[in-house]
Amino acid sequence: MYQIVEEAAEKIRTMEVRGAARIAKFAAETLKKFAEAVESNFDENMNKAAEILLNTRPTAVSLYNAINYVMRYEGENDAEKRENAVKRAEEFIRWVETAHERIGKIGARRIRKNSVVMTHCNSSAALAVIKEAFREGRVAEVFATESRPRLQGHLTVRELSNAGIPATLIVDSAVRYFIEDVDYVVVGADTITANGALINKIGTSQIALAAKEARVPFMVAAETYKFSPKTLFGELVVIEERDASEVAPPEILSLKGVRVRNPAFDATPREYIDVIITEIGAIPPEMAYLVIKERLGYAVFEEGELKISPKHFD
Amino acid sequence: MYQIVEEAAEKIRTMEVRGAARIAKFAAETLKKFAEAVESNFDENMNKAAEILLNTRPTAVSLYNAINYVMRYEGENDAEKRENAVKRAEEFIRWVETAHERIGKIGARRIRKNSVVMTHCNSSAALAVIKEAFREGRVAEVFATESRPRLQGHLTVRELSNAGIPATLIVDSAVRYFIEDVDYVVVGADTITANGALINKIGTSQIALAAKEARVPFMVAAETYKFSPKTLFGELVVIEERDASEVAPPEILSLKGVRVRNPAFDATPREYIDVIITEIGAIPPEMAYLVIKERLGYAVFEEGELKISPKHFD
Amino acid sequence: MYQIVEEAAEKIRTMEVRGAARIAKFAAETLKKFAEAVESNFDENMNKAAEILLNTRPTAVSLYNAINYVMRYEGENDAEKRENAVKRAEEFIRWVETAHERIGKIGARRIRKNSVVMTHCNSSAALAVIKEAFREGRVAEVFATESRPRLQGHLTVRELSNAGIPATLIVDSAVRYFIEDVDYVVVGADTITANGALINKIGTSQIALAAKEARVPFMVAAETYKFSPKTLFGELVVIEERDASEVAPPEILSLKGVRVRNPAFDATPREYIDVIITEIGAIPPEMAYLVIKERLGYAVFEEGELKISPKHFD
Amino acid sequence: MYQIVEEAAEKIRTMEVRGAARIAKFAAETLKKFAEAVESNFDENMNKAAEILLNTRPTAVSLYNAINYVMRYEGENDAEKRENAVKRAEEFIRWVETAHERIGKIGARRIRKNSVVMTHCNSSAALAVIKEAFREGRVAEVFATESRPRLQGHLTVRELSNAGIPATLIVDSAVRYFIEDVDYVVVGADTITANGALINKIGTSQIALAAKEARVPFMVAAETYKFSPKTLFGELVVIEERDASEVAPPEILSLKGVRVRNPAFDATPREYIDVIITEIGAIPPEMAYLVIKERLGYAVFEEGELKISPKHFD
Amino acid sequence: MYQIVEEAAEKIRTMEVRGAARIAKFAAETLKKFAEAVESNFDENMNKAAEILLNTRPTAVSLYNAINYVMRYEGENDAEKRENAVKRAEEFIRWVETAHERIGKIGARRIRKNSVVMTHCNSSAALAVIKEAFREGRVAEVFATESRPRLQGHLTVRELSNAGIPATLIVDSAVRYFIEDVDYVVVGADTITANGALINKIGTSQIALAAKEARVPFMVAAETYKFSPKTLFGELVVIEERDASEVAPPEILSLKGVRVRNPAFDATPREYIDVIITEIGAIPPEMAYLVIKERLGYAVFEEGELKISPKHFD
Amino acid sequence: MYQIVEEAAEKIRTMEVRGAARIAKFAAETLKKFAEAVESNFDENMNKAAEILLNTRPTAVSLYNAINYVMRYEGENDAEKRENAVKRAEEFIRWVETAHERIGKIGARRIRKNSVVMTHCNSSAALAVIKEAFREGRVAEVFATESRPRLQGHLTVRELSNAGIPATLIVDSAVRYFIEDVDYVVVGADTITANGALINKIGTSQIALAAKEARVPFMVAAETYKFSPKTLFGELVVIEERDASEVAPPEILSLKGVRVRNPAFDATPREYIDVIITEIGAIPPEMAYLVIKERLGYAVFEEGELKISPKHFD
Repeated sequence: MYQIVEEAAEKIRTMEVRGAARIAKFAAETLKKFAEAVESNFDENMNKAAEILLNTRPTAVSLYNAINYVMRYEGENDAEKRENAVKRAEEFIRWVETAHERIGKIGARRIRKNSVVMTHCNSSAALAVIKEAFREGRVAEVFATESRPRLQGHLTVRELSNAGIPATLIVDSAVRYFIEDVDYVVVGADTITANGALINKIGTSQIALAAKEARVPFMVAAETYKFSPKTLFGELVVIEERDASEVAPPEILSLKGVRVRNPAFDATPREYIDVIITEIGAIPPEMAYLVIKERLGYAVFEEGELKISPKHFD
Repeated sequence: MYQIVEEAAEKIRTMEVRGAARIAKFAAETLKKFAEAVESNFDENMNKAAEILLNTRPTAVSLYNAINYVMRYEGENDAEKRENAVKRAEEFIRWVETAHERIGKIGARRIRKNSVVMTHCNSSAALAVIKEAFREGRVAEVFATESRPRLQGHLTVRELSNAGIPATLIVDSAVRYFIEDVDYVVVGADTITANGALINKIGTSQIALAAKEARVPFMVAAETYKFSPKTLFGELVVIEERDASEVAPPEILSLKGVRVRNPAFDATPREYIDVIITEIGAIPPEMAYLVIKERLGYAVFEEGELKISPKHFD
Repeated sequence: MYQIVEEAAEKIRTMEVRGAARIAKFAAETLKKFAEAVESNFDENMNKAAEILLNTRPTAVSLYNAINYVMRYEGENDAEKRENAVKRAEEFIRWVETAHERIGKIGARRIRKNSVVMTHCNSSAALAVIKEAFREGRVAEVFATESRPRLQGHLTVRELSNAGIPATLIVDSAVRYFIEDVDYVVVGADTITANGALINKIGTSQIALAAKEARVPFMVAAETYKFSPKTLFGELVVIEERDASEVAPPEILSLKGVRVRNPAFDATPREYIDVIITEIGAIPPEMAYLVIKERLGYAVFEEGELKISPKHFD
Repeated sequence: MYQIVEEAAEKIRTMEVRGAARIAKFAAETLKKFAEAVESNFDENMNKAAEILLNTRPTAVSLYNAINYVMRYEGENDAEKRENAVKRAEEFIRWVETAHERIGKIGARRIRKNSVVMTHCNSSAALAVIKEAFREGRVAEVFATESRPRLQGHLTVRELSNAGIPATLIVDSAVRYFIEDVDYVVVGADTITANGALINKIGTSQIALAAKEARVPFMVAAETYKFSPKTLFGELVVIEERDASEVAPPEILSLKGVRVRNPAFDATPREYIDVIITEIGAIPPEMAYLVIKERLGYAVFEEGELKISPKHFD
Repeated sequence: MYQIVEEAAEKIRTMEVRGAARIAKFAAETLKKFAEAVESNFDENMNKAAEILLNTRPTAVSLYNAINYVMRYEGENDAEKRENAVKRAEEFIRWVETAHERIGKIGARRIRKNSVVMTHCNSSAALAVIKEAFREGRVAEVFATESRPRLQGHLTVRELSNAGIPATLIVDSAVRYFIEDVDYVVVGADTITANGALINKIGTSQIALAAKEARVPFMVAAETYKFSPKTLFGELVVIEERDASEVAPPEILSLKGVRVRNPAFDATPREYIDVIITEIGAIPPEMAYLVIKERLGYAVFEEGELKISPKHFD
Repeated sequence: MYQIVEEAAEKIRTMEVRGAARIAKFAAETLKKFAEAVESNFDENMNKAAEILLNTRPTAVSLYNAINYVMRYEGENDAEKRENAVKRAEEFIRWVETAHERIGKIGARRIRKNSVVMTHCNSSAALAVIKEAFREGRVAEVFATESRPRLQGHLTVRELSNAGIPATLIVDSAVRYFIEDVDYVVVGADTITANGALINKIGTSQIALAAKEARVPFMVAAETYKFSPKTLFGELVVIEERDASEVAPPEILSLKGVRVRNPAFDATPREYIDVIITEIGAIPPEMAYLVIKERLGYAVFEEGELKISPKHFD
């Protein structure tokens, strides 16, 4: 029975399954299968399974949200609990499956005819907005940053090219140079915090700053499972530092006294964000708290000790 | 006789001689040799020689300033003119030779003990400041951007490593992430305009913006022969767009509908610049006009038609 | 029976009934009468009537909100539905009737004794605040912009004069000149969007910008039926361009190569708004989303396809 | 029976009981005792008692919130009402008792390892964050302003010294000088308004401004009973002006033509606040409205006349 | 002899001669004729004549500069003085005659191909830049504000139409709405002060503010005789308030308690100005002092009492 | 002979002679007397005397400027040198004696009728402006900060009281609270740097920041001998830290782990300064360089090694 969970955990750990949306959906599917397989001690077994999955990527907010969503199952007995857990897993899966399309439609409406859009890195949600807007004649051209060090901008221009959307690739340093020709910036999100900050690919906050300086609206496309309940309770999002070898070749890395710092993300404060496009509407970043509370179900007022409410198990 | 000039022009054109300071000095040396060789019709021959040299890199301000400095020779006859031209050429050569050291000394004084400095690209003038400041115990650590697309940041960390200065290499996108740990930004200059703007390596203006946002002083190290007299008369500095192949591999360049834009420089407005360190002092950027007028000798008030004052020949 | 609706629609279309509040109230009254007259097929008839009314001014948010409020009637059968629809219509009418007075009282409290207030255009809600504040000794003088091209500022100073409030009329260009003598700006609203932006008479955003520059609080008086549910789903508010003849005489309009642009509204971003005074309290603009959700009843989380929830019929 | 309330009122009036938290708790305790003692006419007597207590410090928001919390008791008869009132009083007392610890834990999580923190005046909530963060190795040093005129900064450094936390005392004028060495500002709150402004010790808004200029996060520690329901209905927080003798000696006060102004608080607008740490989570200041609505129970939509909803008695 | 001066003064006073450039030139011509006619007591007579002319428009800086330029004549005796005065008058006349063309050429160079330009009011110097830039293919379209209350924007679009330049007329309130479609703002100047502020038609500073907010370069076209020497000595530029009847019709003006304020100019601070285009070059606004000193000849360091240096007579 | 200098040095060192203006004048007087007394080896003796005086307060810019001004004497022989040195000393003395009156007159002109002015600390130059402006009906009221830790604000309100000027004393923390009621800030200067920054009493930069935020012009009154030539060559102004006992009583100073930091000055960047009023005119801060060059006589372009030009002896 635990084989289901352990194999799944392995796939996440080895990055066979990767990407915020895919991981979240995969975790929900795994818990669904596991719930169907559990024979007794439903709560105890589910908790164990959830923990195994959560430990594969403890900082991934979509995984956290997927697992917690399923784990809020209710019921008088194991049968009822199983039924409810399976139902919740299916709901979550459907949520993931439909989010991008809805974000695309909502976001596209905010873009005026024949606009020039800039994007950063390679975000499915942001590209959903751009592609839908292109279909509706709203986007005429896209500036894509190369997004060092991993050059995800190459994936983006490839994807735009396939969709027939005129694209211009630029180095990350050229953002302020070109921002004056841009009508909107559209980026994705790694995480949205309770006070409305955006955690996203390194460089995002510089683009937001340059956009603000030039009065260019900065739009974030984020599924609501990217909003982080833990930040409501003060936790800072951990900014992963990736390997130096992504940035520089060995002859540079081996120089005496030289080190490489390679943070994967940075934080964009809410005052640089015009709007966040979620699958449940276009909201100001300050509404992050409400999304966490109402959409993700984390109560803010708990009697007794400080904890995230109901059925939170970590 | 013209062989002297033509060989020199070839060396500049083929980039055998490169770098703002080196080109400027080399042009002055060439004009000196040529002046010594001219036998008659001094003015006419010198003008021709000057034009040949100027045409090798018509947008390089240091070349322009070198040639104009020498060409302001005076004299009653060819002998006097030759003597004066040679003297002026030698003055200019000495100017170039001493500028970096003086800039290093002046700039270093503005940095407090144990500071963390950020730099961009690979500027000799900026590194002169950093190295001198390190010698005086003022610099403890340097953040160097990699400076895509040509990665001159690798040269910088190598140079810092050789000088024993602790250096941290980061991608250009990480500037805003690290700027909070930085006490000063020190960069070089390609050109300084009459209204105090800095034209420098693409990405410089983004760093200046991020520095301003975090109240980090932004210092420019610029020899006075980097100040552009032509901008006083309205000319915009031409921003060169370099080859797309510097930015992306063939498989990206060949994608349908995808183009690459590769501007080499951008413009930083004067309000983001705390001070410009020149070899003649630490000045606010607004003083650019005065440097052009008094140091480079361009009169602003000309009777009659609009032209750049004395002995300007283009 | 449809005569009720068609005559009403005609009155809105011909602007016999005009002004956001009056239109909204009139639509609710019409639907009430119509509901009372409907004999069978209540839902179908009501939907038709609602659509007829809505089509008279498809971009007017107050009309949209009025109709949707009534159309959320519930009931097991036609009798119950009728009763509920009538009740809802009456509720809405009362809402409109009481909103301005409540806004006046809430807004006035935020103004300190003997203040100088600036207003733009001719907003009943803003004037409700100003008049109440004058009665309480809080307003000493009002600056009113003339509000080109239609000079609604003339209506405003006339109204202020009638109320005995000292008023100063200025051209729209003089806002930044006089803002230093002003303690508060109070304006009305055409529409409030889901991310807290204010859509209002052209020129409003310039005043907000000048107020921000001089640290003068910028207050918006807006009934909650001015908040736009559709913007939650990404729709941009359409900025109507009015006839050129409002701006310039024929001899200018007929000049070769000359055109006139005459947008009626502009958008003020939330960061320039200190507070929005609604009839349900003084709220920050970021709360627009919550007003739409809780006050206007648009659920943000819908299972299934993307639509505005319940009983929305367009 | 009224002796209970009158003695308590006297203690608040004479400042035998002082401090926002202590006053609030004391008022709840008093109402509890009073409720237990009331023999008949429960509503009438409770209302009278509440009014007596409220009048001791009519501008103190924590007192207001304490009394209103208890006074929202429900019940079919006096016995049920008493039971509920006592229960609510106990809830409120527990709320006060646990708030600081929870705020400390939530706030501390937002501070990175080895940070330098600045604080102003002497706030228990802010110090709860700082002490917890110190225990967790997150705070290395604290800058404390002296907080003229009453020099509460002396209390703060004494408290920090007792806790073993390295502290640096500075004059209020030196905030901008030292802010560059600071990683976070953490202050308490007197009151939070419905549109997210912070009312706190005079000087707080200058620190927030200097922090914003230097991109230093500005964090407010505020128990939710500091949020002001009345501001939702437009009321401005009254800024008390304290006695001139706190500021200057008699020989200055007696100078002809010289007066002293001594406001106790100032207002910090929401755009300078990064986050508010409450005992129910880390929220953006714009969420103040929601705290007032959901945590404190003030409905924003009332049928009929304008009033603060249920059981509000002033 | 004095008839020459008195007739001229009358023409200026009655506005038969109007416009900064025309008045200045006319005054120099008058002084030239007068100097040629003076038979004895040259200094005394010239001083009288100068004073008569100056008093016609005491706040017009171009008149002031014209007269002072001529009055700085030198000579050992009356004959020499006359000769020098005539020569200086001719120099000044030539200065005025050539300034616009030179400004046009210098300013045009700063505008990139196919740009959209916004202008305000009806400035010959600004239009010189725009027309030259149009001839060179740099300007594609011009937004012209109507410039209430006197609607000089009508003159501007007429002039643009005649020059074949596509023009769009907008109300002054629509500046922030359209600024995003604009690449440069180009305006003229009434006066430039010693600390780099621009005094110009009411509304100019609002445009500058909106341009700054959207990172659109704001360019001022100003002949150097618009720079005010008196401001160097602290004098504020007097902002004329024009007649209320320019703004509103009698029925508004006669309303009880209503007044009209009609300032003709406002002040734009130097930080909103990218560059000032003068006939002697493109300079930052901070160089105003130097223009006053070197171009207009006002010494800043005087021994003895405070006065404006040489031959200043007021 | 050296007794003259040594006694004078003692008076400066013991603060018997204090205040920037008085010290500067006293040093010039001393050098004058000394020059008159020197019998032989004029240069050598003068250099020694100058060094003795300079060492009394090596960071005081007015002393430095006084001595350097005198030491630029010229002459063919000792007699001529003495005569010239005496003349220069007298010039400098006159300079100091007349500066405040001239600054008062120039500065007052920039203040409009009935203005409210804020000042900080106790600056003679700033008070010269305020008093003259009061005499001319331009100043109606003055806000004076107490200026912790030494409370020089008490001296200021006393001086204002004596002059019959209504004054309001506030704590330094209340600046942002009251700035909205203020029309101008006027402060003095300790030092002006080559790039236009103001070094002045701790707290000055906070006031400048609050003034900028509220669009209140910030005016500096500074004699030109406060401009620092050394900063042109990169030197940073040393910010003196004064004794902790000025800030806190022994019982605080003796707390374990508590230290007091007491910097006497801070730096205000040029972008927060509207104008500097000097005795030679009202200039933008960017002109500091020119004052140093032309008024104080420091050449910026030196052949050969880096040094401050003529007769500089340290």
